Amino acid sequence: MKAKRSNPTMKDVAREAGVALGTVSKVMNNIPVGAEYRVRVEEAAKKLGYQVNSYAKGLKTNHTGIVALIIPSVRHPFFGLLTDYICQVLMTRGMRTLLATTESDMEMENKCIRLAQQHKVEGIIALTYNPNIEMDEDVPFVSIDRFYTNRVPCVAADNYGGGQLAAEKLVELGARKLLFLRIGSSVIGEPDKREAGFESWCQLNKVPCHVIHLNDEDGFNPFYDFLRDHVRDGRPEYTGIFCSTDQLAVIIVKKLKEMGLSVPEDVQVIGFDGLMNFDETPYCSSIVQPVEKMAETAVDILLSEDRSKLPALTCLPVTYRPGGTTRDNEA
Amino acid sequence: MKAKRSNPTMKDVAREAGVALGTVSKVMNNIPVGAEYRVRVEEAAKKLGYQVNSYAKGLKTNHTGIVALIIPSVRHPFFGLLTDYICQVLMTRGMRTLLATTESDMEMENKCIRLAQQHKVEGIIALTYNPNIEMDEDVPFVSIDRFYTNRVPCVAADNYGGGQLAAEKLVELGARKLLFLRIGSSVIGEPDKREAGFESWCQLNKVPCHVIHLNDEDGFNPFYDFLRDHVRDGRPEYTGIFCSTDQLAVIIVKKLKEMGLSVPEDVQVIGFDGLMNFDETPYCSSIVQPVEKMAETAVDILLSEDRSKLPALTCLPVTYRPGGTTRDNEA
Repeated sequence: MKAKRSNPTMKDVAREAGVALGTVSKVMNNIPVGAEYRVRVEEAAKKLGYQVNSYAKGLKTNHTGIVALIIPSVRHPFFGLLTDYICQVLMTRGMRTLLATTESDMEMENKCIRLAQQHKVEGIIALTYNPNIEMDEDVPFVSIDRFYTNRVPCVAADNYGGGQLAAEKLVELGARKLLFLRIGSSVIGEPDKREAGFESWCQLNKVPCHVIHLNDEDGFNPFYDFLRDHVRDGRPEYTGIFCSTDQLAVIIVKKLKEMGLSVPEDVQVIGFDGLMNFDETPYCSSIVQPVEKMAETAVDILLSEDRSKLPALTCLPVTYRPGGTTRDNEA
Repeated sequence: MKAKRSNPTMKDVAREAGVALGTVSKVMNNIPVGAEYRVRVEEAAKKLGYQVNSYAKGLKTNHTGIVALIIPSVRHPFFGLLTDYICQVLMTRGMRTLLATTESDMEMENKCIRLAQQHKVEGIIALTYNPNIEMDEDVPFVSIDRFYTNRVPCVAADNYGGGQLAAEKLVELGARKLLFLRIGSSVIGEPDKREAGFESWCQLNKVPCHVIHLNDEDGFNPFYDFLRDHVRDGRPEYTGIFCSTDQLAVIIVKKLKEMGLSVPEDVQVIGFDGLMNFDETPYCSSIVQPVEKMAETAVDILLSEDRSKLPALTCLPVTYRPGGTTRDNEA
C-alpha cells in the first residue's frame, strides 16, 4: 500500500513547476499551452500527487461527472446485469454512477430522485414503479421499462415482440394450446406488453390461449386448478407455457415436476429475461433481453447533446434462446 | 409526472419568505431560529421547490455525503447482495453510494480509487485484488475480504472458522475422507483461510484430507483423476467435498452427476457463501457469510468518529445451512 498526504492545491503545483497559476489551470482544463509548460506542470502534479477536485470543478462548470442510477435492487440478476453494464458504459464516457436502490418503494423512488438532484447529477437513469415521479425538467432523465410521457425518453426491450416470439416458438415446438402466466406488480409498464404480444399472436394464428394472473392471496392454486381442469386422456391439454419472467419460469418448472409432469417432455416452458445461472447456464428457455444494448442506449440518450428530438420510446430487439425447458432438438 | 423548474436559490427563498438571507441559511443548516421564521422559510422553500445544493455544501463543509463502493461487479450474487446491503445501510446514515465496478482489474481498481478521491467522497469501501492500492490517508478506507496493513480496517466473514465448520459437518454427516477444491485467483486474501481452517480441522481430528487447486489450464481433470484413483469396492473413497465457493459447488455437483455419482447419496458437497437462487432456495449446502452484518460493520467502521483505534481485522461469524447436497436428514 502506498499512502499519500492530503491533496496539494493548484498553487502548490504552480510553485513546484515554477509557472504561473493560470498555466496550471489551463493544463488541468485541457486548454492549449506550450508543450514545455505542459510537461512541467504534469510532472509537478504527479510528483505532488495533485488531484483535480471534481467537487470544486462541478460547482463552477456544472459538470459533476456523476449520473444517478435508481433501481429496485442489484441482487436480482436482471437488475445486477443492467447495473453492471450501465456502470461500465458510464465509466467509458468519463462518468461515475451514483447508485440508489429503492426496493420498489414508491416514496423511496421520489426521495432518491430528490437526493440525486441535490447532488447535482448530470442525469438520472431510473427503473421506477411510481407513476407520479417528481423530476426536475433541467436534469436529463431516462426511464427504463416504464413509459411516462413523450418528454421522458424510455428504453425497453421489445416486450411485445418478445411475447409474439414466445407464442410462435411454443407452437413451432409442438404445443397446441398455450398458457400465459404472470405474477405480482399491477403497475403499468413496458413489460406488460409481453402478455399483449403473446395474446395477439395466438388470436391472429387461431391458437387457443389462456391467461392467468397469479397473486399472493391465491398462490399457485389458479394454475394448478386450470391444469387439472384441462386434461385429455390423462395428459395436460395446455402444453406450452410462457412465463412473464425467468424467475417465474423456474418456479413453474419446479411446480410442474412436483405435479408429476416432465419438462420439456409433457409441458414446455419459456421465460423472459434470458438470465444465466452463475454456472453460466441458462435458467430456462427464454426470450433474451438485450441488456448491454439497453444500458448503452440509455446512456447515449441521457448524454446526447441535442435534447430537442429524443425518442420517446426505444424498444430493442429480443431473441429466443433454448435452455432445457423446451424440446428444441426435436423440432 | 410532475415537473419543476430549475432550482431556486436561497435568495429566492428569502424573498418569498420575507426574511433575511441569513435566516434561510440558518434554517437550512439546522441552526436554531424563532419557530415562526422557521415555518415561513420552510413553507417558502417547499413552495419554490428549493433544494439544498449538496455540491456547494460539500465544498464548504467537506461533507459531500458520498461514499464510494469499489467492487468487481454486481451481477455475481454475492457482490450483488453485498452492494444492496451497503447501499441500504449508507442510505439510513444519510449517505449516498458512488458505485465503481472493476471487473477485478487491478489497474481499474486504482483508477476507481483516484476518481473517488477526486469526487471528494467521505470514504471508500472496497473489495479489491491489487496488493498495491494507492490510497489517500486522509480518506477513510475500509477493505472487504482483503487485509492490507494494520492501518486499513478489513471486514470479512470468519473464513477460517467456516473452513473448520465445513470439515466438521461433512464428518458429522458420515464422510470419512475429505476433499477441498478451489479455483482461480491466486491473490492472497481472507477467503484463503477457508482452506487453512478446513485442513487444520482435519489434521487435528486425524481425518484424511486432500486439497486440489483447479486452474484454467488443466480444467477439471485433476479432480476427475483424483476421484478415479481413489475408489474402493467401486465407490469413491473421498465422499465429502468442500468447495471454496457456492459457484464452484454448483459446477462440481453437475460434474459428479455427469460421472454417474449421486449427490448427496454417493458424495456430499458443501459450498461457501450461502447464496440463494432466485427462486429463494439455496444453491447447495453451504457455509453462510453474514453479508448484511458485513455491510453494517464496514459502514460503521468507515463512519466512526474516533479513528484512533479502529480494528485492523473484523471477522464475523458464519453458519452452516443445509441445501440439498448433504445428507442432513439422516444424521
